[in-house]
Amino acid sequence: MRIALLGGTGDIGEGLALRWAYHTNHDVILGSRDPEKARAKADEYETELSSRGRDVKVNGFTNEMAADRARIVVLAVPPYHVADTVESVEDSLSEGDVLVTPAAGVKRDDDGFHYHPPSAGSVTKLVADAAPDGVPVVGAFHNLAAGRLADLDAELGIDTLVVADDDDAKDTVVHLAEGIDGLRALDAGGIANAAEVESVTPLLINVARHNEKMHDLGVQFR
Amino acid sequence: MRIALLGGTGDIGEGLALRWAYHTNHDVILGSRDPEKARAKADEYETELSSRGRDVKVNGFTNEMAADRARIVVLAVPPYHVADTVESVEDSLSEGDVLVTPAAGVKRDDDGFHYHPPSAGSVTKLVADAAPDGVPVVGAFHNLAAGRLADLDAELGIDTLVVADDDDAKDTVVHLAEGIDGLRALDAGGIANAAEVESVTPLLINVARHNEKMHDLGVQFR
Repeated sequence: MRIALLGGTGDIGEGLALRWAYHTNHDVILGSRDPEKARAKADEYETELSSRGRDVKVNGFTNEMAADRARIVVLAVPPYHVADTVESVEDSLSEGDVLVTPAAGVKRDDDGFHYHPPSAGSVTKLVADAAPDGVPVVGAFHNLAAGRLADLDAELGIDTLVVADDDDAKDTVVHLAEGIDGLRALDAGGIANAAEVESVTPLLINVARHNEKMHDLGVQFR
Repeated sequence: MRIALLGGTGDIGEGLALRWAYHTNHDVILGSRDPEKARAKADEYETELSSRGRDVKVNGFTNEMAADRARIVVLAVPPYHVADTVESVEDSLSEGDVLVTPAAGVKRDDDGFHYHPPSAGSVTKLVADAAPDGVPVVGAFHNLAAGRLADLDAELGIDTLVVADDDDAKDTVVHLAEGIDGLRALDAGGIANAAEVESVTPLLINVARHNEKMHDLGVQFR
């Protein structure tokens, strides 16, 4: 399957791109507002993968061109850019495509990190509201530490929670997630349940800050 | 240390009472609005513990009397009763006591379970606002499945997150939590971070509902 990572030059985009290119045979392409940046990052990822004996092609494009070429479109952009990004690629999405959103609204204050959802109730709902008709939205990959994901030597052994209102789209993303070694995908229900999933992101940061030797945390349900 | 479980006849109270009485030498006492009920449950717990070779005394009292006798007072009551319960035992608390709150505000609708905090922002903050001066409040034990806790054959292997603004009180509760086999206590910061901790409770229910063979879930940070 071809997966476009919009904002694929950022940290969570890098982690997902490397993991999918390393552990699966999916065709990974990067999107960025700046296609030169996307191509430069794609070269970097190819070099990293090649150094591990994995000679695969990673291509870089504008977000629009990347979205146009892929069936799975991951919005690996900061939460305040997701709505703009969906709008910018709207004409590049067609029925059968799936939009995936890993962003969580997080606000920092003096006490710690807090969940700060958009007025839609969650970032996933915001994306669902902005998505064109016929293009289902799946929330997933929220609670993964980008640095740990991008370090292909790091073992995962963690879960990702998947929310969607479209069961086929959800199944597709569960399958994509489980292609990554050490990542288990769990169904957390519909998009109405996304806020509780996204809230885990600031929690992971708070726990890492307050406990020695814990960093780049993930979570496992057991 | 003597630990009073107010609402100790309910499910989370039962789980904590049995685990502390089974795994530690802390003196566990139960409180209830109805002292007869507390005594009857205390007898039940003694029988269960005795059947496992653990002959310990568990006493039952009114909430007021239980709070008066213990240094650690756990509010094992539903979230909509915590403020009333604190008020009812206010005169029984003295400086040096620690109030512990495991409740999370959870609301169910057609889509699933959702975090529904009181206007204070979290149940932990609500308790902190209601607590008498000089009695620190610690949020802990939110994300434990009561049935799994009460089943002494069930292995835990999970974490509990602890929030408090008073470091000594927090350390005391971390120590109490880690006395339970298979339970690891992690510091999640101050009470301002309680909402993200309490939000995990509805999430665990949603994940259990949507994944086969998952029930009585807990969480491990890794």
